Amino acid sequence: MSTAIRAEVPSEAARWQARVRVEVMREVGGFVAARCAEHVAVPDAGELAAVLTGFAAGGKYVRSAFFLAGWSCVAEPTPAAVRAAGSLELLHCFALLQDDVMDGSALRRGRPAAHVVFAEWHRREGLSGCADRFGESAAVLAGDLCLVWSEQMLRESGVDGAALGRAMRRYDRMRSDLAVGQFRDLVNDSRRLPALDDVRDVARAKSGDYTVRGPLELGAELAGAAEGQLDALGRYGRVVGEAFQLRDDLLGLFGSTEVTGKPVGEDLRARKATAVVVLARERADPAARRELARLDGLDRLTDDDVERYLRVLAATGAREWAERLIGQRLAEGIAALSRVPLPDPARDRLLHLAHSCGSRSH
Amino acid sequence: MSTAIRAEVPSEAARWQARVRVEVMREVGGFVAARCAEHVAVPDAGELAAVLTGFAAGGKYVRSAFFLAGWSCVAEPTPAAVRAAGSLELLHCFALLQDDVMDGSALRRGRPAAHVVFAEWHRREGLSGCADRFGESAAVLAGDLCLVWSEQMLRESGVDGAALGRAMRRYDRMRSDLAVGQFRDLVNDSRRLPALDDVRDVARAKSGDYTVRGPLELGAELAGAAEGQLDALGRYGRVVGEAFQLRDDLLGLFGSTEVTGKPVGEDLRARKATAVVVLARERADPAARRELARLDGLDRLTDDDVERYLRVLAATGAREWAERLIGQRLAEGIAALSRVPLPDPARDRLLHLAHSCGSRSH
Repeated sequence: MSTAIRAEVPSEAARWQARVRVEVMREVGGFVAARCAEHVAVPDAGELAAVLTGFAAGGKYVRSAFFLAGWSCVAEPTPAAVRAAGSLELLHCFALLQDDVMDGSALRRGRPAAHVVFAEWHRREGLSGCADRFGESAAVLAGDLCLVWSEQMLRESGVDGAALGRAMRRYDRMRSDLAVGQFRDLVNDSRRLPALDDVRDVARAKSGDYTVRGPLELGAELAGAAEGQLDALGRYGRVVGEAFQLRDDLLGLFGSTEVTGKPVGEDLRARKATAVVVLARERADPAARRELARLDGLDRLTDDDVERYLRVLAATGAREWAERLIGQRLAEGIAALSRVPLPDPARDRLLHLAHSCGSRSH
Repeated sequence: MSTAIRAEVPSEAARWQARVRVEVMREVGGFVAARCAEHVAVPDAGELAAVLTGFAAGGKYVRSAFFLAGWSCVAEPTPAAVRAAGSLELLHCFALLQDDVMDGSALRRGRPAAHVVFAEWHRREGLSGCADRFGESAAVLAGDLCLVWSEQMLRESGVDGAALGRAMRRYDRMRSDLAVGQFRDLVNDSRRLPALDDVRDVARAKSGDYTVRGPLELGAELAGAAEGQLDALGRYGRVVGEAFQLRDDLLGLFGSTEVTGKPVGEDLRARKATAVVVLARERADPAARRELARLDGLDRLTDDDVERYLRVLAATGAREWAERLIGQRLAEGIAALSRVPLPDPARDRLLHLAHSCGSRSH
């Protein structure tokens, strides 16, 4: 399956993705710099501006790529479209900044997470009170600013006002579902044995729809896509989003730090109830199940525990199940595209993005 | 001073405030119920909906009152104006939900704060992991939803689109300044001896402008106020906002729990660097200064320590200084109104609101 997809992917689409990433990043950087100059250029807030600026300048920019691929289904993206795409990257910054606090993740993209940076600043300045707590509060506030600025950047992007008015329905749903999905994630992570259906349902609502389907449909709708196109893109986005999430789960478990920018085993240590882990628990034979329950019961996992956990997970076949499902979902996504007329560049971009979601290594 | 103001206040304006509070609260309640039905009616999120619904149904609704008083300077508020006013209450819900987490405040309006409610739910459900940490994350997410819904409620309020487009500049500034102000507040609270000017500057940016001046100008601008009116309202808003903040500081120090809904001495225990405390430190004689430094150096304050702290504060004269400043600021605010033509009901409402900000007992 994966070879068949790879053969269809033209390198022109990969070059397009690299090019628009640079363009969107430039717009986001400019917007954040302007907001910092307007609101954050006050005493004591220099570190806040530095973190916001640094944060916006990193990442894969997957969501803006799907937005612009969706736009491509109607026309080549305009400068206004590039700015509107940037607003989704700010929404993602909001999610990452606050998720890292809630998950207690110390690393982001191979560097200290924002709450860690703020805590270090608190110590360096010799401030009183708990530095870690200050760091967490500051990162939450940086996230709040990104949430506010995302909407402002979309509104001021210059896309057609009437189209924007109609499309805000989707944007509003993305924002609310993101926060509600994170809440449900926290609940599932706290359940001893969450059900696989619940976990997949939340993963779809929180990550898949907000990473792939939402941005894609928003871009297409803002460009003026027809109902039939939106239907096909919705079907594609749903399954490609699921593939993206499964790949993310696998990388979170089996990916190396150099590839993910995260410590090995972090998802296990944080007791994240990903679909792969939950499925493994369901499929495990009695001995493996006892071993998983023992590891789940430990206060914290050593490196040896993590290694053992991953070996047991792999032995249940959950990893192969996830790989198979990724291949299946990508095939479904590609099939959905074949049933609707699309400009060639848009089709190529969507094939390329589907492929890179399923096989991406970071 | 306070008697002179009281004499000018017609009870019609007080009745108006009570009436619009009910109207705005009904709109906010309806909007939150609709959003919960759309986004939060999913497995495991019942507690989130309950907290959001309960939160929106309480409070003084001061910000919406200033918004509608501002609107009154041009015309009687329409149903669309009432909905737009409600969006400011949702913005305030966002600030309270997250501030209570950051300040570690266990009580809000005399009842357990949202993060405490979520932590109790976590324990009741027998979930694994740290209940307090879950409660804090959940309250931050509830705040995020209020931040998103505030903008959505304003946009969907039905106020004139062109006026809204122009006024969003003010709304955007309020939202960003609120988050940046909270960041600076956290920094000031962590400084051993913040400067009085810094503290007053932050109090103005964070609380004053966002409680009084911002809502007032936003309401007036959306209704179509003239430049001269906006100038006068801005001057009034700035000083009345400062009076509001000083009264808030005094209540946080000397107010009783029945009046404030907060434990006595909470601001002292949280080491909040309010203007009154910072001024007291500056004015204290050497003996009092040593005593304050000793109390500031304690890991935590007992009830006896709080009582002693308040006695020393009062003895420095900082309390009288704050009371005098409140009276002076109210007089300046009222003087600003006298220099511009305003409809009688609007003037009465502004006088009433200024009075209740300066003298309010909760």
